[in-house]
Amino acid sequence: MRYVLLVSYDGTAYGGWQIQKNSVTVQQMAEEAASSLFGVKTAVTASGRTDAGVHAEGQVCHLDGREGIPPSKLADALNARLPADICVLASAAAPEGFDAVRSAKRKTYRYSMYFSPRRLPLKDRFSLWVKAPADLEKLARCARLFEGEHDFAAYSKSGSSAKTTVRTVYSVRVEERDGEAAVRVTGNGFLYNMVRTIAGTMLGYAQGSVTEERIILSLGRGDRSLAGKTLPPCGLTLESVDYGFPLFGAK
Amino acid sequence: MRYVLLVSYDGTAYGGWQIQKNSVTVQQMAEEAASSLFGVKTAVTASGRTDAGVHAEGQVCHLDGREGIPPSKLADALNARLPADICVLASAAAPEGFDAVRSAKRKTYRYSMYFSPRRLPLKDRFSLWVKAPADLEKLARCARLFEGEHDFAAYSKSGSSAKTTVRTVYSVRVEERDGEAAVRVTGNGFLYNMVRTIAGTMLGYAQGSVTEERIILSLGRGDRSLAGKTLPPCGLTLESVDYGFPLFGAK
Repeated sequence: MRYVLLVSYDGTAYGGWQIQKNSVTVQQMAEEAASSLFGVKTAVTASGRTDAGVHAEGQVCHLDGREGIPPSKLADALNARLPADICVLASAAAPEGFDAVRSAKRKTYRYSMYFSPRRLPLKDRFSLWVKAPADLEKLARCARLFEGEHDFAAYSKSGSSAKTTVRTVYSVRVEERDGEAAVRVTGNGFLYNMVRTIAGTMLGYAQGSVTEERIILSLGRGDRSLAGKTLPPCGLTLESVDYGFPLFGAK
Repeated sequence: MRYVLLVSYDGTAYGGWQIQKNSVTVQQMAEEAASSLFGVKTAVTASGRTDAGVHAEGQVCHLDGREGIPPSKLADALNARLPADICVLASAAAPEGFDAVRSAKRKTYRYSMYFSPRRLPLKDRFSLWVKAPADLEKLARCARLFEGEHDFAAYSKSGSSAKTTVRTVYSVRVEERDGEAAVRVTGNGFLYNMVRTIAGTMLGYAQGSVTEERIILSLGRGDRSLAGKTLPPCGLTLESVDYGFPLFGAK
């Protein structure tokens, strides 16, 4: 039977979600835990990859395993086999025909940055240190430029294999608190590096190095040089994946 | 000449502030950085020790070094020699007669805990996971019981060498946000484990295992069994040390 999992991880120590040769990944830890539990090699499929160093609060995964474990208890059985920086927050029986990748309707990512003349070790792990001054009103003001259906080719790493670079961004919201800003982006899908480059372009606008005109031009032209910098992974967190219906009755 | 430093650290990787044989400590890193900068063995004295795994947002230290470095630039010179989880946020020339230990008037510690049926890897580093339900209104309600001058003998590890176990707690405040509670304690000084035991006693009250009567009895009787549990170090952060006057003109 198919199970669905809600997973959170601190990505700092991992080479991203997807299994690869030269680093330990979250998928590897998840599959080792599931394989140990079921006694047979078990694949764990996430809604999408997250890059090396990127975090997740609400990654959604599915796996196929034998029946007999009450679906809501699978979480704790896996957690007993997972390191402390990866946790299954909830588990359930997957709805008929569910696939964590193909059934996903929209995702929300958060990019966090903090503004300080010096590094703050208590914020560093999940938030990017920004030393140069930025106008936080401008950061919020340029957010809506990215909303809507656009060709985000300029916001993706060149050489990306996506069939189309057109994506719909439903909302970009900026929240400020205690010298920290979070850029929250919800869309129907994201190209490789897209959120980190949107956040970098917005920061560039707030710091005066990117103009509004350049942002408007960048959306629709595949010229990578029009967009701003791609920010480092530490500030990025996958907040939630929406499937159009609730997956977990009681967390 | 004497310099004063404002220091923040993520204590996770360290055996506390004070230099010791069997683990790497924050003081050791600070003294190595200062000794390397000044070219001579240099002691760094903090307002007080923090235990293994405890964090600091605003530890205050002094050190004696040669003149010639503009006092406000000392921070960056030291940061260039410190690991990323320790940062000097500000530096200045120390006022006449200043001593980081003896001149300290009051300190504020924060104990953070988050309430969740399952571990949250993104909160775990600086906050204690509390699984069993707690009544947050009760947590706030018992805070004032600890305020005032009390004999905190029951809140200290036995065998502590302090001359007196009487301390004045100026305020205990509880702040809640997003499923997290912070207990902020300001006092004129703290016994070993005192804040972690106050927070544990308050949590015990909020969870129904400690009565108000027992808290009142515990303050003034040196019976350790009257107080609640000593919570683990990960949730504790030294927020600030107050000397009665501003030490850093411009951070």
